[in-house]
Amino acid sequence: MSSQDRPPASSRQDEYRILPEGDLREYLARLPAIAEHLGGAPEVWSISEVGDGNLNLVFIVKGAEGGVAVKQALPYVRLVGESWPLPLSRSHYEYLALTHQARLAPGLVPSVLHHNEALALVVMELIEPHIIMRKGLIAGALYPSFVGDIATFLARTLFFSSDLAIPAAQKKEGIAAFAGNHALCKITEDLVFTDPYRVAEQNRWTQPWLDATAAAFREDLDLHAAISRLKLKFLNAPEALIHGDLHTGSIMVTEGSTVVIDPEFAFYGPMGFDLGAVIGNLLMSYLASAGHEGSPGERRLFEVWVLETIENVWTEFAHEFLELWRTEAHGDAYPPTLFPGEAGVKRLEAERRAYMARLFQDTVGFSAAKIIRRILGLAHNIDFELIEDPKRRAISEARSLRLARAMMVDAASFRGIGAVTKAAQEVRDWQPDFG
Amino acid sequence: MSSQDRPPASSRQDEYRILPEGDLREYLARLPAIAEHLGGAPEVWSISEVGDGNLNLVFIVKGAEGGVAVKQALPYVRLVGESWPLPLSRSHYEYLALTHQARLAPGLVPSVLHHNEALALVVMELIEPHIIMRKGLIAGALYPSFVGDIATFLARTLFFSSDLAIPAAQKKEGIAAFAGNHALCKITEDLVFTDPYRVAEQNRWTQPWLDATAAAFREDLDLHAAISRLKLKFLNAPEALIHGDLHTGSIMVTEGSTVVIDPEFAFYGPMGFDLGAVIGNLLMSYLASAGHEGSPGERRLFEVWVLETIENVWTEFAHEFLELWRTEAHGDAYPPTLFPGEAGVKRLEAERRAYMARLFQDTVGFSAAKIIRRILGLAHNIDFELIEDPKRRAISEARSLRLARAMMVDAASFRGIGAVTKAAQEVRDWQPDFG
Repeated sequence: MSSQDRPPASSRQDEYRILPEGDLREYLARLPAIAEHLGGAPEVWSISEVGDGNLNLVFIVKGAEGGVAVKQALPYVRLVGESWPLPLSRSHYEYLALTHQARLAPGLVPSVLHHNEALALVVMELIEPHIIMRKGLIAGALYPSFVGDIATFLARTLFFSSDLAIPAAQKKEGIAAFAGNHALCKITEDLVFTDPYRVAEQNRWTQPWLDATAAAFREDLDLHAAISRLKLKFLNAPEALIHGDLHTGSIMVTEGSTVVIDPEFAFYGPMGFDLGAVIGNLLMSYLASAGHEGSPGERRLFEVWVLETIENVWTEFAHEFLELWRTEAHGDAYPPTLFPGEAGVKRLEAERRAYMARLFQDTVGFSAAKIIRRILGLAHNIDFELIEDPKRRAISEARSLRLARAMMVDAASFRGIGAVTKAAQEVRDWQPDFG
Repeated sequence: MSSQDRPPASSRQDEYRILPEGDLREYLARLPAIAEHLGGAPEVWSISEVGDGNLNLVFIVKGAEGGVAVKQALPYVRLVGESWPLPLSRSHYEYLALTHQARLAPGLVPSVLHHNEALALVVMELIEPHIIMRKGLIAGALYPSFVGDIATFLARTLFFSSDLAIPAAQKKEGIAAFAGNHALCKITEDLVFTDPYRVAEQNRWTQPWLDATAAAFREDLDLHAAISRLKLKFLNAPEALIHGDLHTGSIMVTEGSTVVIDPEFAFYGPMGFDLGAVIGNLLMSYLASAGHEGSPGERRLFEVWVLETIENVWTEFAHEFLELWRTEAHGDAYPPTLFPGEAGVKRLEAERRAYMARLFQDTVGFSAAKIIRRILGLAHNIDFELIEDPKRRAISEARSLRLARAMMVDAASFRGIGAVTKAAQEVRDWQPDFG
């Protein structure tokens, strides 16, 4: 599918330029496979810029026959502007990650049709009629195939890039191949693991209601110790090739299909970070729901579904991951020859359970980190932002912060995913005292 | 000092050849700095091959003025032969590690005078009148400056390559720079973390006395679970640039000086692996001592010194590492801004203690792994091998295995280094029942 082996003549490293719509049309017209895929005369292709993320340009291009999505990295953070430069190489890592994920989780990521390293540009199949999951959740929609799809995506991409599945030499090559993506990692290190817990110019929160909580979080040394341990793990635990930004804005859905996009933060990191991104964002969706109610209880069915979904994401992930470990363990970790016979099989299974218990603790902590950064840090979620009444928004956010603090500081007290959803339900009806 | 920037004309990648003595003389004579350092006519330089390690050729070259050590990698494992190929690139990683360590721990590693990548050859200052520490320990010698030197070497090389000291981007570059050394890591993965615990052709042990223990260790699922967790950490925890093979055969000593050599196994791995190598090998030295007694109690003073040394290595390492953390923490982990004020300082200090406690647990486990591999695996120690009476040797080895098993399976029960030396003392007088 990919035509990266035969880039157009212009793809030299010094030839990066931001492609305006007209140039993009001409560029795509000169790629035979893409032109054929789109169909019809290039002059009548529709092109619209739809990027609503924080970093890049995204164009939807539609022709007589089909459509494509074109993603071009900008040399700076779109959300902030040229004052915050960001390497174009992230497009290279996104391309690497997309092809890796496509191999391991076919159908769950967009197919890459073309990649131009010099232009930091990737052309992908157009994912339609999908919408960004976060928008669907805000509208109260249910996605029955989501659990199975995301559990499969997580289990397969994480397991098959881990020491359980591949030889150490291959894993070390993978780690080295993604080591250059450190500028994107640094964004996470700062915006998720550091800034929300200290005075930082870019922090914001729903004022004045959350002023006291934000101040308390900046003084909370138990929390600071816990987030620092999580940060150390983020820096120090290349367990698998992770997506690195797996929130509900990086997932496109219909009732029957799920597609994970935007893996430009990919690197070898802790598995719990991806799991925590999914679960943390679902918890925010759940606790934001009250803010989107027209009348009390209106979204009860949705909320029940979100809680079940949170439980099932972990449970089905764990089930699939363990099954892969039992059947596809070709890596150097936990050599089966050390666990011979019936007793060995039983003991290895116990070790697998212990491994999953450790991974669950990580997941609880990282979930909490993802929640806190979206409420007290730079980049916020429309789950909360679209709650128009700022006080109602603050109530949902305060509940989320209360839950997240408990999950981060007392991660070990959450013995299973049921304890997480139970705590979420309890906090759902908690009324914060805004003084 | 290094002349790697101006290699002789022959240094092309395809020009590797094993240098016989005559060629080596000619090669060195053509390096002006080396020739001057050696002094006098090349024809009268003395050259002797002294490599007693498992992997390489090592020549001592002495001229009228001075001496050098020349280390050339062979394309196979020397201990086994051409049937076990091993990449020459390990010389590149050794060179990288040596220059890194020289910068961080000056005076504690040999200076590199010349490096030829194509010939996989490093010329270093001759370390004299030092001897290999293991040999001195077997002879019952005490090394008063060892503790301070090795504690400094460990604290500085580990701290300054960790996320506590350097920015994440720099650390990721370092990890990538050493990722290619996976063939050497694989030796450790197999010979330390796997083979001693299963039937493997290359395993050997002191027969028949240890037959039952070797069989028991191959059946011991508690042990297999523990070694598998340690192996996972070895695969998955690039905490710092570690030496990777820091046994007492990689340390040269006089009463007043310590020099660490042979870092060809270097990569970014768990700090506890280096600490465990030092402590595990000192524990073997302690428990082998009885086998070298001419009369009971003859080596009592030596044994007391070794136990004190074990305690002091950990204690002084921890002291120096913590002091560096307090004063040189320029890395991305544990940002000081999250621990402001007096309470913050106190809390960060508590976190540092918790970090050291975790590192100590790793150290206990890795120490045990290093002991077991030397008694039941492929490569043995002369600490034991030079005990001529095989039954006496087996007694020392059985005591070491008993200690190591407890340390690996119940690492958490060893709450401090004093608990380790106490357990070592207890096992020192245990009489194994060889049936």
